Amino acid sequence: MDNELNLTHHISHRFNEELEEVRSNVMAMGGLVEKQVADGIKALLTSDTEIAEAVASSDFEVNAMEVAIDEQCTQILARRQPAASDLRLLVTIIKTITDLERIGDEAEKLGHIAVKLSDKNASSSQFVELRHLGEHVKTMLHESLDAFARMDVNDALRTIESDKLVNEEFESIMRQLITRMMEDPREIKNTLRVSWCARALERIGDHAKNVCENVVYLVKGKDIRHTSLDKMREELI
Amino acid sequence: MDNELNLTHHISHRFNEELEEVRSNVMAMGGLVEKQVADGIKALLTSDTEIAEAVASSDFEVNAMEVAIDEQCTQILARRQPAASDLRLLVTIIKTITDLERIGDEAEKLGHIAVKLSDKNASSSQFVELRHLGEHVKTMLHESLDAFARMDVNDALRTIESDKLVNEEFESIMRQLITRMMEDPREIKNTLRVSWCARALERIGDHAKNVCENVVYLVKGKDIRHTSLDKMREELI
Repeated sequence: MDNELNLTHHISHRFNEELEEVRSNVMAMGGLVEKQVADGIKALLTSDTEIAEAVASSDFEVNAMEVAIDEQCTQILARRQPAASDLRLLVTIIKTITDLERIGDEAEKLGHIAVKLSDKNASSSQFVELRHLGEHVKTMLHESLDAFARMDVNDALRTIESDKLVNEEFESIMRQLITRMMEDPREIKNTLRVSWCARALERIGDHAKNVCENVVYLVKGKDIRHTSLDKMREELI
Repeated sequence: MDNELNLTHHISHRFNEELEEVRSNVMAMGGLVEKQVADGIKALLTSDTEIAEAVASSDFEVNAMEVAIDEQCTQILARRQPAASDLRLLVTIIKTITDLERIGDEAEKLGHIAVKLSDKNASSSQFVELRHLGEHVKTMLHESLDAFARMDVNDALRTIESDKLVNEEFESIMRQLITRMMEDPREIKNTLRVSWCARALERIGDHAKNVCENVVYLVKGKDIRHTSLDKMREELI
């Protein structure tokens, strides 16, 4: 495979360090976003107002990281004019942090809804449907960051596949919620809020999938967005 | 302003041509996405199954364009190793086409919902709330592509500002829809579908705003994402 990723040696030792620094910044951003998602879910399930408010207002930190990494990448591109695999790494990072930032946005939404619901003394039992979906999405996000850290194509493909389950779970929750709204119209408003949380979780899954697609692109030099998974496996493994 | 955009002259005439080609491909992709959004809205408002099905299945064309432009940008980066403003142009294009592709995804959703509703013989009068929002979003998208084509910061800032109105309109539609669901629980399913369309339109507005933010970044070399509009105007104009 002639275009396999090769990040090992550069003429400039300093250049190596710069790339490593960017990668570790992306991992730090990923860690922060992961914490936000976990906190957003926790705030919902436990009706914890304090955590909810913290998540709802913590977005600025993720945003600042995105802007900083973006700037770092552009400067390296300008100064080092990297070719081939390093260039691909930088372009991939620019795309990946967009997805991480949007995951942060969705986590923020979970926090806002949790704050709103704690005002209303809504019972946290309403969120039981979200528990499983939340766990799946957290796992998926963690695995996507792991695949990015280790540049592991097989893990990335496995995580991409698990997005299907997340989508199925989301559809099933939506059906349950619609039934509940029809049975108890007084609960429509709160039930809709649950549906927005489910939607936010489903979108976090989508963004985690994008991160994994970026990993495959980076390692294999192949753009797999918009390719079916079977075709992908066939071509890549 | 020392980092104003300068796309005029390059040592290599061929390089100029390559950049122009990419820009015109982005405009073509934008035109296609605009048509999809217009068709998606039309399909909903007129219950036109034929248009609805066409939109619901036309996404592959936009996706193919995204992949092609992305590849074109990466190759130019690798071969020409551009510095400063050309580098910024290419990075900006890579981000912009992600937003255009996601606008295409949202238009596809409108098509799917329109197909589903035409099956159910739902009355198109249900969509009256979407007419205004649809018009605003179409205008916003058109203006954002215009700002991109002419690299006009003032137009870009104006369009960014109009996203606020789109969001307000979206919130107002959601309130109306919730009231309707409570008044007529048998209509919950269809009313939810209308709400998903409203959400899709609102997201198209968000992506159009992203395109405009990219224009400001490109021309002024200033990252305005996550900056308040007032602060932006203050600093830039």
